[in-house]
Amino acid sequence: MSATIDEQPTLADLLRSALEQGATENLPELIDAHAAQDIAQALGELPRHHWHSLFERLDHARAADVYAHLPTEHQTLLLERLGHDEAIRLIGELSYDDAAAVLDELRDEHAEAILGALPQDDQDALTALLAYPEESAGRIMTPEFVTVRPEWTVAEALDHLRDHSEIAETVNTIFAVSPEGQLLGWMRLKDLLLSRPRSIVGSALRTDIVSIEAQEDQEEAARRISHYDLDVLPVVDEHGVILGIITVDDVLDIIRDETTEDFHRMAAVGDLPLSMRDATMRLLYRKRIGWLVILVAVNILSGAAIAFFETSIEAVVALVFFLPMVIATGGNAGAQASTLMVRALATGDIQNRDWFRLGSKEILVSVTLGLSMAAAIWLTGNWLGNLEVANAIAIAMFLVVVFGSLFGMTLPFVLTRLRLDPATASAPLITSVVDVVGIVIYFGVATAILQLN
Amino acid sequence: MSATIDEQPTLADLLRSALEQGATENLPELIDAHAAQDIAQALGELPRHHWHSLFERLDHARAADVYAHLPTEHQTLLLERLGHDEAIRLIGELSYDDAAAVLDELRDEHAEAILGALPQDDQDALTALLAYPEESAGRIMTPEFVTVRPEWTVAEALDHLRDHSEIAETVNTIFAVSPEGQLLGWMRLKDLLLSRPRSIVGSALRTDIVSIEAQEDQEEAARRISHYDLDVLPVVDEHGVILGIITVDDVLDIIRDETTEDFHRMAAVGDLPLSMRDATMRLLYRKRIGWLVILVAVNILSGAAIAFFETSIEAVVALVFFLPMVIATGGNAGAQASTLMVRALATGDIQNRDWFRLGSKEILVSVTLGLSMAAAIWLTGNWLGNLEVANAIAIAMFLVVVFGSLFGMTLPFVLTRLRLDPATASAPLITSVVDVVGIVIYFGVATAILQLN
Repeated sequence: MSATIDEQPTLADLLRSALEQGATENLPELIDAHAAQDIAQALGELPRHHWHSLFERLDHARAADVYAHLPTEHQTLLLERLGHDEAIRLIGELSYDDAAAVLDELRDEHAEAILGALPQDDQDALTALLAYPEESAGRIMTPEFVTVRPEWTVAEALDHLRDHSEIAETVNTIFAVSPEGQLLGWMRLKDLLLSRPRSIVGSALRTDIVSIEAQEDQEEAARRISHYDLDVLPVVDEHGVILGIITVDDVLDIIRDETTEDFHRMAAVGDLPLSMRDATMRLLYRKRIGWLVILVAVNILSGAAIAFFETSIEAVVALVFFLPMVIATGGNAGAQASTLMVRALATGDIQNRDWFRLGSKEILVSVTLGLSMAAAIWLTGNWLGNLEVANAIAIAMFLVVVFGSLFGMTLPFVLTRLRLDPATASAPLITSVVDVVGIVIYFGVATAILQLN
Repeated sequence: MSATIDEQPTLADLLRSALEQGATENLPELIDAHAAQDIAQALGELPRHHWHSLFERLDHARAADVYAHLPTEHQTLLLERLGHDEAIRLIGELSYDDAAAVLDELRDEHAEAILGALPQDDQDALTALLAYPEESAGRIMTPEFVTVRPEWTVAEALDHLRDHSEIAETVNTIFAVSPEGQLLGWMRLKDLLLSRPRSIVGSALRTDIVSIEAQEDQEEAARRISHYDLDVLPVVDEHGVILGIITVDDVLDIIRDETTEDFHRMAAVGDLPLSMRDATMRLLYRKRIGWLVILVAVNILSGAAIAFFETSIEAVVALVFFLPMVIATGGNAGAQASTLMVRALATGDIQNRDWFRLGSKEILVSVTLGLSMAAAIWLTGNWLGNLEVANAIAIAMFLVVVFGSLFGMTLPFVLTRLRLDPATASAPLITSVVDVVGIVIYFGVATAILQLN
């Protein structure tokens, strides 16, 4: 990134100077020239006392559009700065899935006050969405969709779409239902357009339906949309009645957030609901101190193991020189193995039942890695020390690398079986455990070979 | 995952038993009942000698659909098992972006033989795509799209779409162009459908165009589609002439692959072009041994640092007991900080210019973490050892945690500035460097406070 790029004023810079210098006549032009997503992002970079003054300069539809693209925590903060009437008008302009996500984050009394002031049909729709479990497909769907009937003609279906598409989030994929609302098939808008107007919808309908039940996990919804290359995933109840739709752009956000969660867990950081930009010092401290304390408890065992082998250390001080190489390599091999498994499990590349087959492969890989590293440290040991020490540390290296790899590879599967997140098998956790076991193996082997007792 | 689920036969199991028991009359039913994506996935789990026999039972369109969903490495392997004529027919059925990706992976002679046997217009289109740099937007776009002219009536535009939509990958978003092909605006198919047939396309056109130049990186294409919630991103040349489109489902694959690359780099594993399921032992060894050797070289310095402080160790053996706790905690804090930065840089949550602001926050966070961990180890040290040792290790703990955090936080920014991937700041790399510096700080502080010289 060159200095020139860094010095370009950002949209946030331009908005700030317009607001601060009272040159607000430039604002409409700036706002019109940028997408709602960019204005939402710039808003997050502005000092909070500017938020309201920028926001009240947007017309209603534009304000709702910008608001829908703010991160959840900014939506809540901004809503609290708006007056009651303004807040209600804004929530009323949002699509139901966005509105439900905002209400969910507000204090209960605040959410109920807003909900109670909305028109009855909005109230009913939002209450229904909020009744689904958190992180379920039902919670993130929108009930704003249009269905057609298979017995209609194509011309009738197109007329129906023309009359109702304003309220629908998308009509790129159209679902056909029974009188009871059961999902019978689907077609692309394009195929409807290509069909002869007098033909029957049912004759062009595709019946290879991919859907999800409202109670299922939102991650499963993301997996299906991604695996089947869908624009839209219909959400159904236990009788197959369509309740709502989830669109691919919602799924991009879910995938990003779930992946970030995995990254953080793999580094022994707790779940951060905020972006790094907005996370407070206090929050970052809280999310990091927990694992540091847990892991230091494991490290005490490393210290105890070293203390236990005090006499070996005093007899051959050279052993301490090679100790970091051996246990660090074991930890690194373990971190490699666990990350490969955690990521492959997360993408669905492998399943839990593949453990045995992958385990067999990992044994071969770890033996080869162990032999290579043992050869390297044997040469170093023989060059710096003596043959006996070289033999001892090479054997220890081999055993520690094999142990580290197999432990790192197995832990994610064990966690999955215990219904825990495999990403809990973080590099710091693997390294700490391999340290303890590695020290015992290292001095155990050295004591035996060098006959130190 | 319950045992019952594990015991359910998978589609791959069913296909295998049908092929092996010669009960091939069940195959058409099995194939019809499953999506192309699922058949492609099952194919990957079958022994390779079954691939061809399964594949020749699919009709042409279905075969192309299944083939398009195979991972690249399987596409190449399968193509080499097909006869020349079969291979050409298959490539001819694929969309241009998929065909270009396959040809790119084949041996040059093989790719040229197939390319030369295709109709001239397919040859031209594929040669044009393959001329763009690897991982560029041009390489992954498809030239199969339909454009309209702003001066047309809505009825004319719809007629044009009806005549040409068969060849287009999607018509959910329609682009309007000048006679020279320059992109002038866009509209949703839905909006075209809602407009009065006699109105002019230009009057309903939206001009807030988001596009990408063909030479730009595919990751940037993914970022724009995700940020602007697009179904389709138009790819243009330097004059704004539309060359192709990239669809959101292509982007889901790119995001998954780039994220996997980041996960692997963060664990000091080289880039794996294959899935874990198919990666050979040899490949896994090659991708893991490199960093293990580099890191062991860093670990030698740890050993050297310990050897340098040999007299301190002999004077106060209790120091060795607390060493793992101090340096491991520093490494863990560093891994936390680097992962938070790497992920936030990858999602665009923060940019390189945010370093100073985030650095200030990290100083506060790391000081607080350092003080907490120092207090914890001081209590342990005072309880187990004596006050002087407790003071020394507590000060060392504070300094090592602060150093680890700031080093882990800064390295991803430095790498970005050097135009390297920030994900190279892996947990194993951070841990190894913090080990060396941590040992020097630890014994340095202890030597000074305990007056060991």
